Amino acid sequence: MPQDPVRSTTEIEVRYAETDQMGIVHHANYLVWFELARTRLCTLSGFHYHQIEDLGYHLMVTSCQVGYRRAARYGDTLSIDAWLAELASRRLRFAYEVRRGEELLATGITEHVWVEAETGRLCRTPEPLREPFRRLAAPSMGADS
Amino acid sequence: MPQDPVRSTTEIEVRYAETDQMGIVHHANYLVWFELARTRLCTLSGFHYHQIEDLGYHLMVTSCQVGYRRAARYGDTLSIDAWLAELASRRLRFAYEVRRGEELLATGITEHVWVEAETGRLCRTPEPLREPFRRLAAPSMGADS
Amino acid sequence: MPQDPVRSTTEIEVRYAETDQMGIVHHANYLVWFELARTRLCTLSGFHYHQIEDLGYHLMVTSCQVGYRRAARYGDTLSIDAWLAELASRRLRFAYEVRRGEELLATGITEHVWVEAETGRLCRTPEPLREPFRRLAAPSMGADS
Amino acid sequence: MPQDPVRSTTEIEVRYAETDQMGIVHHANYLVWFELARTRLCTLSGFHYHQIEDLGYHLMVTSCQVGYRRAARYGDTLSIDAWLAELASRRLRFAYEVRRGEELLATGITEHVWVEAETGRLCRTPEPLREPFRRLAAPSMGADS
Repeated sequence: MPQDPVRSTTEIEVRYAETDQMGIVHHANYLVWFELARTRLCTLSGFHYHQIEDLGYHLMVTSCQVGYRRAARYGDTLSIDAWLAELASRRLRFAYEVRRGEELLATGITEHVWVEAETGRLCRTPEPLREPFRRLAAPSMGADS
Repeated sequence: MPQDPVRSTTEIEVRYAETDQMGIVHHANYLVWFELARTRLCTLSGFHYHQIEDLGYHLMVTSCQVGYRRAARYGDTLSIDAWLAELASRRLRFAYEVRRGEELLATGITEHVWVEAETGRLCRTPEPLREPFRRLAAPSMGADS
Repeated sequence: MPQDPVRSTTEIEVRYAETDQMGIVHHANYLVWFELARTRLCTLSGFHYHQIEDLGYHLMVTSCQVGYRRAARYGDTLSIDAWLAELASRRLRFAYEVRRGEELLATGITEHVWVEAETGRLCRTPEPLREPFRRLAAPSMGADS
Repeated sequence: MPQDPVRSTTEIEVRYAETDQMGIVHHANYLVWFELARTRLCTLSGFHYHQIEDLGYHLMVTSCQVGYRRAARYGDTLSIDAWLAELASRRLRFAYEVRRGEELLATGITEHVWVEAETGRLCRTPEPLREPFRRLAAPSMGADS
């Protein structure tokens, strides 16, 4: 039975600069928070994302979606959940949830491809990252193998 | 026969601060560019968006999607097209295309609802904006009426 | 003998979006970090900065200075120290230090005036904040009085 | 008689994302605008700043100062003047003025050193840029020599 993917939870404090004159957090900042949460999740694979870049690869964003349900505000402490929703040989999909306490404020998805930093060419999951990322996507299978 | 919606084109010069260490524009900035293009489009309705806020309303973002095809880079001059893709009584959908010359770099969609600034409550298109926004969505119908 | 002002220490994790194509943190982000550290410091006075705004006042920035000694990088965890370096009846000066472990990366100063949110007019330190801010500036004097 | 340095003027339209909940432009954005203006000024030397990076050099920021006199707001069109206020063999100082029409909103200074991109080491003004930058600093002297 496939297990749920590994979830990372990242706590952030809303920054004043993240608000706009509507008095709420500007919607573009959620993508920045997702990225912070993705960094945290990658770390759970055993590689900090900057180490992945040191291996010579980028996880380039090819698409994103955000659904905003309730506004985040200055003074809020939020938690961002991230998990690897889909892992194919050449592309990944991460999913996100932003909460203030129990309240769900936003959800999101980002899709990525692997790119060789030097050439800019698309590539498969770099070999040293295959097993670690597989374990993020399906922890039990990682445990079995 | 319905006409195409009005398109605004906004030219922007990529800012150094918009790049990240991958050497390309960070993906969150496209949402900021879309907003600039949306401001320009609103102006074509006869109202600058800050005048809409002066009337006591916000166009709150409820969702966004971006598809990234090719990276934008520092040194690039880009053009952002925006148009009102769908206009209902309580919600709007804008669409966007980012180009470097003829080359399509990204596409996007943002969805919005009208909110009364004072109460934070959802509302219908404010009366003074109905006709102007209808003309953005379908210029010929505006011309006929 | 005057005591040192109260110091707040805020830990931050560098965000990918904060880097630029030079491969280091873009210099404008330090002002955003300072603000986060200032928020933390205000909280030590007993008021979260959003509560200060709820009282009807803003601490508007009138000047800033940053000295950059060493670059911060993605993957770094930094600590930002902030303290109230000067407190006059109508203006304040905060000072900041950014460190990676023991290493001093940057120093900064921001100057502020009190503004009535409603009218936009300059004003003296709002009465409910006088004693709390005095204690931030000189903890021992606050204790004596 | 030394002439005034070359001035570039860059026009910008305030972006909604640049505002904060105080209803004015967040103070960190002025550094981003200064950089845009600096890019424009560099272009007047005959080199776009990305060409300078292609030569293998960075102009790293070592300090900045901003004085804020009046707030910029969403809906404003601003002009940013930039000039090379001081040019030494290893360091440069740029100065800036932000205006809304005739009204001076802010002034600023940034100081920079030349860095070899590959090694990260400080260096003198790269040879191909010496004459162009000298002409920015003192146009008449460039004309005489």
